[in-house]
Amino acid sequence: MRATFMYGPGDVRVIHVPDPVVEHRTDAVIRVVRACICGSDLHPYHSMSATSQGSSMGHECIGVVEDVGSEVATVRKGDVVITPFAWSDGTCEFCAEGLQTSCRHGGFWNAGGVGGLQAEAVRVPHADGTLFPVPVEEGSPLIPSLLTLSDVYGTGYHAAIRGGVNPQTTVTVIGDGAVGLMAVLSARQLGAERIILMGRHADRTDLGRDYGATDVVAERGEEGIARVRELTGGDGTHVVLEAVGHMPAYTQAVGVVRPGGVISRVGVPQYEDAPVGFAGLFGPNITLTGGPAPVRAYIDTLLPGVLDGTVDPGRVFDSEVPLDDVARGYADMDARRALKVLVRP
Amino acid sequence: MRATFMYGPGDVRVIHVPDPVVEHRTDAVIRVVRACICGSDLHPYHSMSATSQGSSMGHECIGVVEDVGSEVATVRKGDVVITPFAWSDGTCEFCAEGLQTSCRHGGFWNAGGVGGLQAEAVRVPHADGTLFPVPVEEGSPLIPSLLTLSDVYGTGYHAAIRGGVNPQTTVTVIGDGAVGLMAVLSARQLGAERIILMGRHADRTDLGRDYGATDVVAERGEEGIARVRELTGGDGTHVVLEAVGHMPAYTQAVGVVRPGGVISRVGVPQYEDAPVGFAGLFGPNITLTGGPAPVRAYIDTLLPGVLDGTVDPGRVFDSEVPLDDVARGYADMDARRALKVLVRP
Repeated sequence: MRATFMYGPGDVRVIHVPDPVVEHRTDAVIRVVRACICGSDLHPYHSMSATSQGSSMGHECIGVVEDVGSEVATVRKGDVVITPFAWSDGTCEFCAEGLQTSCRHGGFWNAGGVGGLQAEAVRVPHADGTLFPVPVEEGSPLIPSLLTLSDVYGTGYHAAIRGGVNPQTTVTVIGDGAVGLMAVLSARQLGAERIILMGRHADRTDLGRDYGATDVVAERGEEGIARVRELTGGDGTHVVLEAVGHMPAYTQAVGVVRPGGVISRVGVPQYEDAPVGFAGLFGPNITLTGGPAPVRAYIDTLLPGVLDGTVDPGRVFDSEVPLDDVARGYADMDARRALKVLVRP
Repeated sequence: MRATFMYGPGDVRVIHVPDPVVEHRTDAVIRVVRACICGSDLHPYHSMSATSQGSSMGHECIGVVEDVGSEVATVRKGDVVITPFAWSDGTCEFCAEGLQTSCRHGGFWNAGGVGGLQAEAVRVPHADGTLFPVPVEEGSPLIPSLLTLSDVYGTGYHAAIRGGVNPQTTVTVIGDGAVGLMAVLSARQLGAERIILMGRHADRTDLGRDYGATDVVAERGEEGIARVRELTGGDGTHVVLEAVGHMPAYTQAVGVVRPGGVISRVGVPQYEDAPVGFAGLFGPNITLTGGPAPVRAYIDTLLPGVLDGTVDPGRVFDSEVPLDDVARGYADMDARRALKVLVRP
């Protein structure tokens, strides 16, 4: 079958690899209906070390179950399934607590003998705990919106949940990528009435307004911080949802959060150390939270609104490429010609 | 009057300064009944830059009101009062929210024309918002326990509240100083049934056991982390209360916190940058919270137990010096000969 591999910065190729098969009794094999490219895929696209063996790519997809191991009970051949960006057993204490990203027997795609989802098919470990069957056909127009439940929508929602967003909190969202826009949508769903979106791509921030942003701040750095403070009587917002992952976004988050407030990060940090001392977080009692979203935990909550059309998170996809052209999809996202790219095997 | 000033590392002196007077209509002047020395006073005692003018010292006391400005309504001459380590107006939004340390018109002792509390008397700005009158005589045996409400008890309680301690959470407390011990007491009061105290002074950890610690880990660093993990089935505890403020304590906190858990800091950080990236906090969805405790907000909750003898936080004081010997009190705390020292003007 064909699968996407990255060999170094800007070097994305579709290659032939062996077809995946059921290896363990709890595995499933799914055929990919639609995958997509994530903002976090651009981090290695910029900075990975060149490698001759390459890294398989992709961690979001809607698939159709093709085969299951003997112990798989909750999905069967032919089911259309949401495939979260982490796989998990569904039975350990962490899964029971809704923290599937820390599952005792779980893991991430593209590692440890498990392939990536920008491919024709993939072996899914712990299929019962991982896959979420949905009552639609694979040709449904809802597929893009359902696909956001495998990462970006659940990730934006995680940011808002961890940030403690509610009708009493003001919110700043940093980043107008797909996760930032989903954070806006999620904050609105949780009742926030004032949502300031920091982003400088008008087409994206316009979509952000549709999702619930009440203010848009295009400025960045000190200027952006000053603008948010001006909009909030000098204090900043109760909650900041950081959906970028670079240090300037962290600095901006610290700059716009209100004393006693929360910075909730879901952009994968591209730094290890950051200011957390008296001047940074401690003095004003700022809470720093967030992490990889256990999106599997949120599907139950978010799926009904997608199925009944209350929300349309699939609007974050503004482009689609066939799998053979996935490299073009990367280039388009990297150049900001596309917000988020569907991949069709 | 006499007051305590620090002039450089290890250089603490009692000097004569002008008697404080009411300067603003919202001021009070209090005579100090008992002050004390804080673990955080040892930070400048180790590392402050030498200065010929000196810094006034002390931020905890029980006092008696001697004089009030014309607008002071809630305390009057003769009242015995708890004096929190931050002064605050009691009327702004932050005070209303219980974050008096971020009061719009508040501040800290020993700064901006306001003196320190290791002295015979002090001018108290915003007396109505700051002082908390208590129904005891100044000779009451409850004075030491009441004095803990001006800082260490409220600070330990803040750590536990911000950490989300409840009957379902396991807790590690890092540090066996007075704040660490108060964090143990607070965690127990909030219902925690498993409280691991990390400290290596047996007399202190014994007191910690009296306050509710179920386990004591004397080892530090990697060895201490391994021991806590061994005690918790490998996972660490849901909550870590960090009551030290040095980087090794932060590292230890990250090492013993359970995935999805909370590190709540109340030890004043002696660092600005710390690891918060994927390996540090982000990957396992760890929350970092805490800051200077708005102790004024907790007196209502904690005072009844002190007055009726349910708790005896005053046991953290194991030494008393007259004001003229305050330098000896510093030296005793620094050498760990004393846990916490009362100062009697």
